[in-house]
Amino acid sequence: MSAETSRIGQSAGATGDIVISIDAMGGDRGVADVVRGMGMSLEKNPRLRYIVHGDAEALKRAIEKDPRLAGRSEVRHAEGVVAMDDKPSKVLRSAQGTSMWSALAAVKAGESPVVISCGNTGALMALSMLALRKAPGVDRPAIAILWPSLSPAGYNVLLDAGADIRADADDLLKYAVMGASYARNALGLKRPRVGLLNVGTEEHKGRAELHEAAERIAEVAPSSDFEYIGYVEGTDMPSDRVDVIVTDGFTGNVALKTGEGTARMIQGLLKEAFAYSILSRIGALFALTSLKRLQKRIDPRRNNGGVFLGLNGTVIKSHGSADATGVSAAIKLAFTLADHGFTERLAARIAVGPHEPDRARKGLPS
Amino acid sequence: MSAETSRIGQSAGATGDIVISIDAMGGDRGVADVVRGMGMSLEKNPRLRYIVHGDAEALKRAIEKDPRLAGRSEVRHAEGVVAMDDKPSKVLRSAQGTSMWSALAAVKAGESPVVISCGNTGALMALSMLALRKAPGVDRPAIAILWPSLSPAGYNVLLDAGADIRADADDLLKYAVMGASYARNALGLKRPRVGLLNVGTEEHKGRAELHEAAERIAEVAPSSDFEYIGYVEGTDMPSDRVDVIVTDGFTGNVALKTGEGTARMIQGLLKEAFAYSILSRIGALFALTSLKRLQKRIDPRRNNGGVFLGLNGTVIKSHGSADATGVSAAIKLAFTLADHGFTERLAARIAVGPHEPDRARKGLPS
Repeated sequence: MSAETSRIGQSAGATGDIVISIDAMGGDRGVADVVRGMGMSLEKNPRLRYIVHGDAEALKRAIEKDPRLAGRSEVRHAEGVVAMDDKPSKVLRSAQGTSMWSALAAVKAGESPVVISCGNTGALMALSMLALRKAPGVDRPAIAILWPSLSPAGYNVLLDAGADIRADADDLLKYAVMGASYARNALGLKRPRVGLLNVGTEEHKGRAELHEAAERIAEVAPSSDFEYIGYVEGTDMPSDRVDVIVTDGFTGNVALKTGEGTARMIQGLLKEAFAYSILSRIGALFALTSLKRLQKRIDPRRNNGGVFLGLNGTVIKSHGSADATGVSAAIKLAFTLADHGFTERLAARIAVGPHEPDRARKGLPS
Repeated sequence: MSAETSRIGQSAGATGDIVISIDAMGGDRGVADVVRGMGMSLEKNPRLRYIVHGDAEALKRAIEKDPRLAGRSEVRHAEGVVAMDDKPSKVLRSAQGTSMWSALAAVKAGESPVVISCGNTGALMALSMLALRKAPGVDRPAIAILWPSLSPAGYNVLLDAGADIRADADDLLKYAVMGASYARNALGLKRPRVGLLNVGTEEHKGRAELHEAAERIAEVAPSSDFEYIGYVEGTDMPSDRVDVIVTDGFTGNVALKTGEGTARMIQGLLKEAFAYSILSRIGALFALTSLKRLQKRIDPRRNNGGVFLGLNGTVIKSHGSADATGVSAAIKLAFTLADHGFTERLAARIAVGPHEPDRARKGLPS
């Protein structure tokens, strides 16, 4: 079911109707890369408008240099910056006055449906929960990430990638519903295939909470517009037999980082291999275009952005080391979600409760 | 255990002092690949001798074709085969008479210190526990695997890779001690660096049992001849800052398979990239030698073999799809462990208890 809501295509022209709230501080590369990313995105997509939070002087200086941003960026000054190594507990005490808090406040106030921050993940989750509160029916919010895959969309969704180290059967059920909704809106899949991450595909494998979650997810799948395909394994992470992979945040975080580490190691060895001899260097030259296409396919900057699901507002965590290309990818994702009215759609999915059998007939959003 | 025993030619001379017990059935490729792997290994290492279990007729036929195996392979007939999809509970009831059981019985009887099987992992673990029993002091045996890495040895050790889906603080402590002993004996590392897998390297991160395990592992490290380096993350899996990565079998299994899946996807994309155009094909030709070296470095056949730790005997689980090269790699690992008297060394490590401060002065084995 994909009831196109009125929001999509509501804007007649290039009018900056989609507002993104951006925390410009706290990343590893500073304000200039964030502003450059904003400019890159606006050049491709004139419907964007920004509210950007941080050191007003630095921001204004950077924005004035970029004619693409003229008239489309509102700067909100914030003195404080949440540092990468600040503990969430400390951040919670001194949140007011930070750029992260200011960016979330704009979403809370309804000025923007989505916030982007390159800052500290733990702090961003803690402040997001404080500012936006958990959506009704959600006990544990989750972080959903896009995993390069052989699926037609080019990505699979993995959640939870590390919002919480625990998840019981009920949390996993909510993750399935939220992940499916995210896949519909971010990847345009009508009926995503959802799998539950386990150590084997046989029914008797794995922990008790997985068995309970498996039963309940299978139950709600027909009325929740996704297909439950059963257990999947680590090898399925990049496979095309699944679109949404559901797991607890501990396992998801280890899997995510293991995949990143493996990819980085192979890329390093590949570089070494090509640098090894005159012949291999010549080979690399001939194959350059093809290799660049491969590089692009698995470039972590292009699927930059973990999305916090289960809050009253959408929060995108961009990589701390994101450059302008990375920031621009996060903005593109933010735009897509905002344009689809994702926050409201997701809230409707969860609030009605996954056991509601009449969902389809009621014309509820995806 | 099966009755029919016949030795093909009697071994002569001082060589053939290391006996490996091999379950030749239950793998995906059948007897011929196992026997070819045995021949490859014996050609390189004349100290090997085999007791091989399975269909006597098929085995004898294959062995007689290979002159390298003459006088070095004793065949033990077993009617039964444990199938890849047999549930461990079923296997336990009908173990007697299978080649897997026969192979384990040879270790139990003291004829060989180590067994290799390509069969069903769950069944092999269940039968190993039944035949060999857990070593004193071990509650949960673990599967240790070698992970291609940038460490000088070329591999890191990961355990538990999936023997058990749970592990409490005490299990994790034992895994650290066993993993360090395995790294010393299999990789020749004097003082392995041990890390505990977590979702971040800060002390407050992760589950409660990890905090307790971290404290206890740090405590025993000095007297157990390894260095505890604290928490590591998924990105460290192939890194050179750690040698032994300790985690529960659920997380370890997901990480292992995620790494495999990621590597396979990139290899697939790489192949595609090189096949894409005439130019890229020419490039591949020039770079062939270098690419083959890369391929070899991450070839899963060359680090074939998960080792079961914590039993009264060493059990090596070879990939079900292992070809002759894969079987030969497992035999090489078996030889190294047998030659070091690994089973006894490990038992001594655990039995003395990790809190024994006088280990070094007592001249205990590694």
